[in-house]
Amino acid sequence: MIDQDAACCPGLASAPLDDGRAAELAKVFKALGDPVRLRLLSMIASRGEGGQGGEVCVCELTPAFALSQPTISHHLKLLRQAGLIDCERRGTWVYYWVLPGVLDSLAGFLTTPQAAGVTA
Amino acid sequence: MIDQDAACCPGLASAPLDDGRAAELAKVFKALGDPVRLRLLSMIASRGEGGQGGEVCVCELTPAFALSQPTISHHLKLLRQAGLIDCERRGTWVYYWVLPGVLDSLAGFLTTPQAAGVTA
Repeated sequence: MIDQDAACCPGLASAPLDDGRAAELAKVFKALGDPVRLRLLSMIASRGEGGQGGEVCVCELTPAFALSQPTISHHLKLLRQAGLIDCERRGTWVYYWVLPGVLDSLAGFLTTPQAAGVTA
Repeated sequence: MIDQDAACCPGLASAPLDDGRAAELAKVFKALGDPVRLRLLSMIASRGEGGQGGEVCVCELTPAFALSQPTISHHLKLLRQAGLIDCERRGTWVYYWVLPGVLDSLAGFLTTPQAAGVTA
């Protein structure tokens, strides 16, 4: 859903976005547009060395919120549908991790040509 | 609303976000979570050298959409309330520009420590 290679597509500030790409990216930003989901994603993304590669049991996520487990699971499902995280059930629990490259790809999309050192 | 200096605050993948910052940033991502607003922001951000510094008349934005001017103005208002753009009325028209640094600051927030070259 998000292009893994940030260099493949023009950034937000490089050229006007076309309809299709705007629709795709809006889904991802919409998933990020909620404080609970942002905190969940941050808890997952900050696990492990270098901020990626770690995985978190849903049993560690739920206690950080004053919300029911079904509500937390629903927010995690929206993050998964947006292509930001993935999960696997092992025994009783489900484990979540951030899909490699998606956060940096999204960051690359927002970075202006000025900051990226490209002169337009 | 968004910290101008990306280095001031931990990124999404550096440490779990606190409540207050999650609420602030969720507002910004929510503003980006709509295809029309993303296209409007891209049209404004891609104006001018290096992808920043340009400004766009609302009269140039509206014809790109099959939407009424009040609808476009409403979307622009949400982008402005999120601290992404600002505007000024001059004569008949309103002119919009992207606030300096906000896109790169947001990109910095999403960049993982791995991609930023920091070993956690």
